[in-house]
Amino acid sequence: MSRAWIIPPGQFEVSRIVSLALLEDVGPGDISTLTTVDEDTMAEGIYIAKQSGILCGIPLVHEVFKQIDPDVLVEAVLSDGAVFYKGAVLARISGRARSLLTGERVSLNFMQRLSGISSMTQQYVQAVASTNAQICDTRKTTPGLRNLEKYAVRVGGASNHRMALYDAVMIKDNHIVAAGSITAAVNRAKENIPHTMTIEVECDTFDQVTEALSSKADIIMLDNMSLPQMKACVAYVNGRCKLEASGGVNLKTVWSIAETGVDIISVGALTHSAIACDIGLDLRIA
Amino acid sequence: MSRAWIIPPGQFEVSRIVSLALLEDVGPGDISTLTTVDEDTMAEGIYIAKQSGILCGIPLVHEVFKQIDPDVLVEAVLSDGAVFYKGAVLARISGRARSLLTGERVSLNFMQRLSGISSMTQQYVQAVASTNAQICDTRKTTPGLRNLEKYAVRVGGASNHRMALYDAVMIKDNHIVAAGSITAAVNRAKENIPHTMTIEVECDTFDQVTEALSSKADIIMLDNMSLPQMKACVAYVNGRCKLEASGGVNLKTVWSIAETGVDIISVGALTHSAIACDIGLDLRIA
Amino acid sequence: MSRAWIIPPGQFEVSRIVSLALLEDVGPGDISTLTTVDEDTMAEGIYIAKQSGILCGIPLVHEVFKQIDPDVLVEAVLSDGAVFYKGAVLARISGRARSLLTGERVSLNFMQRLSGISSMTQQYVQAVASTNAQICDTRKTTPGLRNLEKYAVRVGGASNHRMALYDAVMIKDNHIVAAGSITAAVNRAKENIPHTMTIEVECDTFDQVTEALSSKADIIMLDNMSLPQMKACVAYVNGRCKLEASGGVNLKTVWSIAETGVDIISVGALTHSAIACDIGLDLRIA
Amino acid sequence: MSRAWIIPPGQFEVSRIVSLALLEDVGPGDISTLTTVDEDTMAEGIYIAKQSGILCGIPLVHEVFKQIDPDVLVEAVLSDGAVFYKGAVLARISGRARSLLTGERVSLNFMQRLSGISSMTQQYVQAVASTNAQICDTRKTTPGLRNLEKYAVRVGGASNHRMALYDAVMIKDNHIVAAGSITAAVNRAKENIPHTMTIEVECDTFDQVTEALSSKADIIMLDNMSLPQMKACVAYVNGRCKLEASGGVNLKTVWSIAETGVDIISVGALTHSAIACDIGLDLRIA
Amino acid sequence: MSRAWIIPPGQFEVSRIVSLALLEDVGPGDISTLTTVDEDTMAEGIYIAKQSGILCGIPLVHEVFKQIDPDVLVEAVLSDGAVFYKGAVLARISGRARSLLTGERVSLNFMQRLSGISSMTQQYVQAVASTNAQICDTRKTTPGLRNLEKYAVRVGGASNHRMALYDAVMIKDNHIVAAGSITAAVNRAKENIPHTMTIEVECDTFDQVTEALSSKADIIMLDNMSLPQMKACVAYVNGRCKLEASGGVNLKTVWSIAETGVDIISVGALTHSAIACDIGLDLRIA
Amino acid sequence: MSRAWIIPPGQFEVSRIVSLALLEDVGPGDISTLTTVDEDTMAEGIYIAKQSGILCGIPLVHEVFKQIDPDVLVEAVLSDGAVFYKGAVLARISGRARSLLTGERVSLNFMQRLSGISSMTQQYVQAVASTNAQICDTRKTTPGLRNLEKYAVRVGGASNHRMALYDAVMIKDNHIVAAGSITAAVNRAKENIPHTMTIEVECDTFDQVTEALSSKADIIMLDNMSLPQMKACVAYVNGRCKLEASGGVNLKTVWSIAETGVDIISVGALTHSAIACDIGLDLRIA
Repeated sequence: MSRAWIIPPGQFEVSRIVSLALLEDVGPGDISTLTTVDEDTMAEGIYIAKQSGILCGIPLVHEVFKQIDPDVLVEAVLSDGAVFYKGAVLARISGRARSLLTGERVSLNFMQRLSGISSMTQQYVQAVASTNAQICDTRKTTPGLRNLEKYAVRVGGASNHRMALYDAVMIKDNHIVAAGSITAAVNRAKENIPHTMTIEVECDTFDQVTEALSSKADIIMLDNMSLPQMKACVAYVNGRCKLEASGGVNLKTVWSIAETGVDIISVGALTHSAIACDIGLDLRIA
Repeated sequence: MSRAWIIPPGQFEVSRIVSLALLEDVGPGDISTLTTVDEDTMAEGIYIAKQSGILCGIPLVHEVFKQIDPDVLVEAVLSDGAVFYKGAVLARISGRARSLLTGERVSLNFMQRLSGISSMTQQYVQAVASTNAQICDTRKTTPGLRNLEKYAVRVGGASNHRMALYDAVMIKDNHIVAAGSITAAVNRAKENIPHTMTIEVECDTFDQVTEALSSKADIIMLDNMSLPQMKACVAYVNGRCKLEASGGVNLKTVWSIAETGVDIISVGALTHSAIACDIGLDLRIA
Repeated sequence: MSRAWIIPPGQFEVSRIVSLALLEDVGPGDISTLTTVDEDTMAEGIYIAKQSGILCGIPLVHEVFKQIDPDVLVEAVLSDGAVFYKGAVLARISGRARSLLTGERVSLNFMQRLSGISSMTQQYVQAVASTNAQICDTRKTTPGLRNLEKYAVRVGGASNHRMALYDAVMIKDNHIVAAGSITAAVNRAKENIPHTMTIEVECDTFDQVTEALSSKADIIMLDNMSLPQMKACVAYVNGRCKLEASGGVNLKTVWSIAETGVDIISVGALTHSAIACDIGLDLRIA
Repeated sequence: MSRAWIIPPGQFEVSRIVSLALLEDVGPGDISTLTTVDEDTMAEGIYIAKQSGILCGIPLVHEVFKQIDPDVLVEAVLSDGAVFYKGAVLARISGRARSLLTGERVSLNFMQRLSGISSMTQQYVQAVASTNAQICDTRKTTPGLRNLEKYAVRVGGASNHRMALYDAVMIKDNHIVAAGSITAAVNRAKENIPHTMTIEVECDTFDQVTEALSSKADIIMLDNMSLPQMKACVAYVNGRCKLEASGGVNLKTVWSIAETGVDIISVGALTHSAIACDIGLDLRIA
Repeated sequence: MSRAWIIPPGQFEVSRIVSLALLEDVGPGDISTLTTVDEDTMAEGIYIAKQSGILCGIPLVHEVFKQIDPDVLVEAVLSDGAVFYKGAVLARISGRARSLLTGERVSLNFMQRLSGISSMTQQYVQAVASTNAQICDTRKTTPGLRNLEKYAVRVGGASNHRMALYDAVMIKDNHIVAAGSITAAVNRAKENIPHTMTIEVECDTFDQVTEALSSKADIIMLDNMSLPQMKACVAYVNGRCKLEASGGVNLKTVWSIAETGVDIISVGALTHSAIACDIGLDLRIA
Repeated sequence: MSRAWIIPPGQFEVSRIVSLALLEDVGPGDISTLTTVDEDTMAEGIYIAKQSGILCGIPLVHEVFKQIDPDVLVEAVLSDGAVFYKGAVLARISGRARSLLTGERVSLNFMQRLSGISSMTQQYVQAVASTNAQICDTRKTTPGLRNLEKYAVRVGGASNHRMALYDAVMIKDNHIVAAGSITAAVNRAKENIPHTMTIEVECDTFDQVTEALSSKADIIMLDNMSLPQMKACVAYVNGRCKLEASGGVNLKTVWSIAETGVDIISVGALTHSAIACDIGLDLRIA
């Protein structure tokens, strides 16, 4: 990961989703804590890694406690994007015991899911580090969390594909059928989109690639092609447009795919198959 | 799974989260589809399983297309809770091609994640089928999706733990420290909660279990105990309150834990470590 | 009221409902004040009791002025739960005259309604103070204000019944008819609810009580029974589950009902028949 | 009540508040009903009056069931504004048992509170029926329910005062102090408000009334004046502007106040001291 | 513009619309700025007029940066309502370069539109300054911006007509047809509206004016009348109620209309035909 | 306008903004109509052009009446994008008189503003019809209406620039200063953005253009350049990337700018200086 920094998550997004998560988990109140812990009891805690990985979620921890109780002090020990190992202290929090106990689960749920994504992403990124291929994500994200999960992908060292259906054109098989041909589909799109927007065409065969290229698509996706097919396409296109490989990508196959010379490899698993990173919060009544 | 039916997901919840997901993915419009597919082009499609599992998410598919275009016809071939095998057709949709294409990804994202949870849940449920133990979930859910993920757990044949911080008391180590003792904590809670609400106490040791029992807690959680410890607690409690096992639960250990005689085993992995179930949507322009 | 403290109202709830109330009353602006009072005119005011009662609503006053103008100083003279008498100063406010005038009505509307509930609640609580019975509320609350009104009930010294339809099971006559019998209904519920959730059965007759008890319901509601009926049920149940009396409860009958030995008496009047407590705000331009 | 019809409640308002109330009471689901009643069980029910009064709330019942289940049939037997007596059937509902049971409490909470207001309003209206005075409400409404409660006042035969702080000017003692004099306050307001907006001045003394009249206020409120004082003001003003009596109004005093010749009598009690009207819903599984 | 001050825009309104505008323009993030400007780079900027006009929008600039980054310092050089000339510095901002760049466009969009309205308004106000007529706005505002645009009209020195359909009665031709006559319409309205609400009747002919006057309407609108017609109406009404001229008003005709002696002239163009005032923001990296 | 169709406005956007507009204008109710028009009175109406232009807003009219009263029949006579002349009937509506009267102003406000934009847009599009230049919009839109206004631009025959700060990179002077050089800025952006996203660089001088081109920017904006400067840039770039002209564009200058050979001309005036198109609604009680 040669980049010195990472585009942060949208601040309004962070505020909105944390507010939703707190409403969901705390609602009218954390009954257990309110009945057993006095208001002026203080506590402190540390977030500890129980496995190794790539950290993601610190801004969410800040926001969780800002919304519950702005007096809680949150100190990040590591930053998002940092490598951590089992036993590492990731962040410290201190303040009213009630506030720390109430925010514990929500802050962990964010940190565990996002770090799960960034850690798995990092594995894919390292697997292709010796090649020129770039790993990117897909739209296979958890409903409601897309922007945060795409942030976790960036934190893990990969790049993002389009955010949604509205910010880039992706012409798939059914679009081609409906428009009549790749050329027709690309032309219809070109006439109607902003000049800042790009067009990607999903191709299953070499012939489709040749048509997509001559139609002036900006990016061509090689969908579920074999390695030899991909190599042939790379050779044919020869840098005239970007090539993205998609389908059948896992940690075992990704290096071979990257070796074919494609520019980008999109991996749905980064978001749809990431599991929570094991991180705990050790709280201690002061 | 002997139950003939399952508590459905909250209808307002389904409507709200689908609306959020569509705003996120479609926003101002599915540019690719709008530019390449004519408004009156029709299409049909089938949701196909690419692996075996337990189906979950049909009501979400209905809602996705109801919100995009009420004219789309959604026909469930299987119902939530059904076992399916690779190649099974799960549901059919037909209607305007634009609508089907626009709702494809969001409907799949819901169905894949929820079926992932119900399928993994079913594995745990079957692993303990020869015992009297019941599998339940935790609050380790994806922020914003708790009610849906807990629905998927029910669909998978397990039961739910408390929904959130507000609907049951769970006294943990820090609550005990803050209140002075288990007895003090339980008493403070008892005085203040609705008579319909129950109290669960998290215990690390046999001594704590004895105190929790005599404090009249409704449920005792045996937290990260060894199998012999759990057995000792089961023998001691002898049905005087419910016992829940928690910690270190995975598909390898769950049977042994169930064999100790505990009533409930809570499994964070059901929601924090479920991965997407491989389900596809084959669309065909009519 | 032996309890030293009271579960506070949910902070997000307080913020949400105050925001709604200000939007409703202030909307685009308090025209009278904006046209007649200069921006830098200062004022101060005192909330004065014009009758005796139990105070409830201080957190709402804080929130009202925090949202209108964080520079307003709100000082509680008494706390929620305090007994007050005619003429008592309950709280002081000072700051910009415009802000005080704009927040006057909304802050009073909250304080008057909530104190009305806590004051009436206290009457019921005192009426049964010589018994072991506990007074609790119902779901007969003002739409949109349930959590606040249930807070006022706690402030008045009573306890809460379930919050809503989702956090406890209450099996009524129609549920029994639909399920076939009390036992069938309880069993169907038991199989499907979280282990942290309890089941209450509404019974009209002694026979129903015997069935409900043997079905292992957690709580039995004696619905509109005569005093002798209730006594017979208390004697029969003999502590094997909690007994709640409901129906025909008013300040004249509540003591006799409590004397039957029931554990809980639910009183719809606490919320549906409370009237505003007479509290005024005397403002003075500084 | 000579009016043939009544301004209905705002449709968006009705939809919004019902949605809020259902979210509050039903949330993720009516557990009791979902576990004990089969999806295809049908039921019917009647809303029955357990006391006499003026009906208000039928549009809310329609909306509650429209949101829960549009297949539920709601038939009003009486309309809002109708007089009813103990035992009267007010409305009928029929449809899925689950839907009727889930909407029971929320529909009753609306109907009971609104009918409570319209019934009490009607008492005040009848008390002054032999005079020319008109009864109106105040801003002392339940936070979040103002528009509905003001609708109930109309249904009860009285008229509304201003809706909120933004739609009319009401100059009170502190505004007068801040502006320097009644005349100054009225002039400052006049210069700045829409020409469609009116100005009311709250007066404690006869001298203030004379100043308010000469300042060209549209309405003068006689605040907490004695009957002789009010009569003197009525004689002096002699129809040159509207006069409103306020303060110390109850069912015992309202006729005497009306007899002084004031045009309008505003009564906070209509909304702040109305209690629920006793109305029940008898449901029967079909 | 003899008024020393102006009713400010509603604070909740300002907060709501700015939040909407930022969500719309910034969404998940200002990619250009986040990728090219370091987090700790500072900048400063000045808002400069590129034409002359009446300033409106300073509170919006404050709110934009408060929401993006409360550390940004916004200093107004001129206040809303001030006359400015080409080259004038209107406000200064300083703080993190990222925050200034991200808020640039939204703050300008508000200031340009609102100043466009206030500047055009001022032209109309000056055109009738020698007469007693008052310029006011209409409901022909941009959807979603009514309160802000009506604020800009006040800033420009004119007054507001009713805010919306709910705060005053305006009887138009179809209302008259539906009710049967002007008198019937006015009477039906009078019986049902708050005593604080006024009634305006739209009249096309002198005969309608005589009927409207005798029906005791508070305001009569002379709709699209010729100058002689308006003069005749003014002479006839002779101060017995307010007269508003409407229709065919532009900068060429407004003085002649005002000279007829009408009290108020409503001008839709103030909001529907105002164009952006040319204002720029010169930013400089510190 | 050779395109056969136009990307429609986002359906969720249309629903959201109409709902906001109705809340703003109708709120608790259209008092004038409710008091004077009986519920069962029917009416019909026609939208008539009072000037010529390009129609835009039909979907908004549909949505306005769908939300007010789904029984209202809306029939478009012309479609969005159609040329109309003074006197043309644009659409017909029929249904309850109350519903038509209540929706009149909001539907007109939308249609007038959007048709104003599409009509002005069409003027610019025709002015350059003899050239290869394309007209596009900017982010200088009305806060809250961006998506609708950009739809009106498409309807007028021009194309859209980026939607917002999040969907394309635009490197301006301050970004260049902050990053150190054009090349540094482009490289920093390239490393971090999705491969589907493009980079535009704003250049003031020929030298900047040469640097931007060699930095591999996708689009170069020629900012406020003279015609000879633009021609020189066009000649130099010679099709190697897209060129956009910006600044000083009006109907007098746009043809000359287009003649320089630039690909795109962005025009802020399309949205910030469009005025309402004169369209009326003639309603007639049936």
